[in-house]
Amino acid sequence: MATIVMKFGGTSMAGIERIRHVASRVRREVEAGHRVAVVVSAMAGETDRLVGFCREASPLADPAEYDVVVSSGEQVTSGLLAIALGAAGVPARSFLGWQLPVRTSAAHGLARIEEIGTGDLVAALDAGQVAVIPGFQGVTADGRVSTLGRGGSDTSAVAVAAALGAERCDIYTDVEGVFTTDPRIVPRARKLAKITYEEMLELASVGAKVLQTRSVELAMKERVRLAVKSSFSEEPGTLVVDEDEIVEQELIAGVAYDRNEAKVTIVAVPDRPGAVATIFGALADANINVDMIVQNIAHDTAVTDVTFTVPRTELVRARAVLEAAKDAIGFERLIADEKVVKVSVVGVGMKSHAGVAVTMFRALAERGINIQAITTSEIKISVLIAEEYLELAVRVLHTAYGLDAAA
Amino acid sequence: MATIVMKFGGTSMAGIERIRHVASRVRREVEAGHRVAVVVSAMAGETDRLVGFCREASPLADPAEYDVVVSSGEQVTSGLLAIALGAAGVPARSFLGWQLPVRTSAAHGLARIEEIGTGDLVAALDAGQVAVIPGFQGVTADGRVSTLGRGGSDTSAVAVAAALGAERCDIYTDVEGVFTTDPRIVPRARKLAKITYEEMLELASVGAKVLQTRSVELAMKERVRLAVKSSFSEEPGTLVVDEDEIVEQELIAGVAYDRNEAKVTIVAVPDRPGAVATIFGALADANINVDMIVQNIAHDTAVTDVTFTVPRTELVRARAVLEAAKDAIGFERLIADEKVVKVSVVGVGMKSHAGVAVTMFRALAERGINIQAITTSEIKISVLIAEEYLELAVRVLHTAYGLDAAA
Repeated sequence: MATIVMKFGGTSMAGIERIRHVASRVRREVEAGHRVAVVVSAMAGETDRLVGFCREASPLADPAEYDVVVSSGEQVTSGLLAIALGAAGVPARSFLGWQLPVRTSAAHGLARIEEIGTGDLVAALDAGQVAVIPGFQGVTADGRVSTLGRGGSDTSAVAVAAALGAERCDIYTDVEGVFTTDPRIVPRARKLAKITYEEMLELASVGAKVLQTRSVELAMKERVRLAVKSSFSEEPGTLVVDEDEIVEQELIAGVAYDRNEAKVTIVAVPDRPGAVATIFGALADANINVDMIVQNIAHDTAVTDVTFTVPRTELVRARAVLEAAKDAIGFERLIADEKVVKVSVVGVGMKSHAGVAVTMFRALAERGINIQAITTSEIKISVLIAEEYLELAVRVLHTAYGLDAAA
Repeated sequence: MATIVMKFGGTSMAGIERIRHVASRVRREVEAGHRVAVVVSAMAGETDRLVGFCREASPLADPAEYDVVVSSGEQVTSGLLAIALGAAGVPARSFLGWQLPVRTSAAHGLARIEEIGTGDLVAALDAGQVAVIPGFQGVTADGRVSTLGRGGSDTSAVAVAAALGAERCDIYTDVEGVFTTDPRIVPRARKLAKITYEEMLELASVGAKVLQTRSVELAMKERVRLAVKSSFSEEPGTLVVDEDEIVEQELIAGVAYDRNEAKVTIVAVPDRPGAVATIFGALADANINVDMIVQNIAHDTAVTDVTFTVPRTELVRARAVLEAAKDAIGFERLIADEKVVKVSVVGVGMKSHAGVAVTMFRALAERGINIQAITTSEIKISVLIAEEYLELAVRVLHTAYGLDAAA
């Protein structure tokens, strides 16, 4: 008998009617002869409500107590799903984080799973029970409640699947799978049947929020076969697998975008050793992540311009940090621009193919879209463009790489 | 340093503003030099919401999973109060039921506390921390979550006070204390400065819902000094203490009433041995509690009438059980009356005073209020009367026993 892990997100658990529907999907897998562990999120909106309480009680809430509060949402849904399964004739019981236990680091609010106790879990599965496990929560070595950070239930599911050596881990969400791009922008976007872990990671990091990044990293490390499906349809979804499982490699898996970028240009920085180091040192000290960096080459003057991006939410802080270091850096002025967006093409195929970047630059140039910065990784090319061109750029690139579905 | 336990009910914990107010009351006790453990209820309405989810998921919800769901409300408020205390500069941490542990029986939904582990709790108090403990919840010997039944947080507080050998247990609620009767009916009702455990028990059992009955029993057994106060005022409240602590004994402590009674009269039961046993045997088999019983004495016929009361919520079931046993009992017909109410006078003083009952019967007779049934205990006399006389009877008795406050 194969062991499978099924994970249901907040939209799938929002209300008893939907929980009953989840129970019927679980029942189907049980009737197909599988041993099933289910990992659940809190009802949609519940974690926000609980986080709101904590913030209202204190902007600097004790993180250990914050975890006590916010972990309760998953406790509720795991009990309710166990009840709904029982009512559907499927023997089931819940195992809370401290009961398994899901042992984590002590970094409250952003803990990492270190080990999962499987003794009681395996005994329950052996006894023909479905195990229902609240995602997102764990317990520290000190016996305190911990949580894994937003979206952490995906990681819980992958960790449970790894601990059980499960045949696969099915992530049920409110989308049909992973698409070549955002279908709201490109109606002819296609659902991918398969995608590699590496591609999924790059897509997650550039804003295609289907899976928590850490869950994909863990699945890749532990070789857990992930499937992303909709709990509201019968479509097969997308498999996230090893590169060698993908027989017919597409050049590009998808086009993603990220609106959470802001561009900073520092004008007339002295062109001497150490000036640039002072800029990025000040930002690093303030714990501000810098993403794309462009330094204009200074031909005939003693100054240069430095352009880079920071998360849009950090722009105010970044500006303050730099203005405070103005004398130390010695620049003339600082220009900030929030009206930018990062567009990326991702695909393992580009490892072995030249010319992928050229296709991108040419397609954008033909539409008069100016590229303000570029970064690349082994399987990703990202460009920074003016926000007003976002939809046009995504559509153009989707077509240029041959991703459009047949009309 | 004295150790005290403070317990706050759902109204006191309803929302962050109120939780912050609770934190300030706790802080005052800490600043007065006390070691403080706080027991909290869920936010008002939250337990009902969670119970509603369980019922909707299945009318026959697995009680162990029901407990997983409904215990979450107190988990949330204990974390939030610990956060609010920290924000108020008072070091605090929560201890959940499984963390202390609060070991209970395995009777899910209505578990009894068997033992409370105090090691970590005492260590926290010794270290100058306030311990915040969710009421209502515990853990079974199997390591499953359990709950104590509605109102169980009072019992949690008393059990923690007993385990710590606390100097007192202050129950903060939304009333000012225990009154001689319902102030909505008798505006001149007085708040009692002291009341005995026995009186409090009898008052609780006849519908004065200030404290859960079980918490009073436990306080009496463990000699925990209870105080009932309002979290919204500075008034001293009511002390619940041993009889010998009350120097000036009042004859009657209070007048209580209970609307949850229904009267059943079984007409023309054969006046032979076993007929009455068959009636109450059938009700006992159906787990229906019978309270007051009156059997008319048959002078010159072969039949008798039997009258008794059952909880109003059980009337439909009681009627069905008796109709099914009609042939076995051999009665003629059954008359049910829901328009009755039980009015009681309670006071340890009546142990040593004769004539207490006479005062009651005379006062009611003077107003033309017919008594349909009577029960007595060592410190309580209860009468069943027509519901329309409820307010009049309570006012008349309050005056007759000299309980009215000076005008």
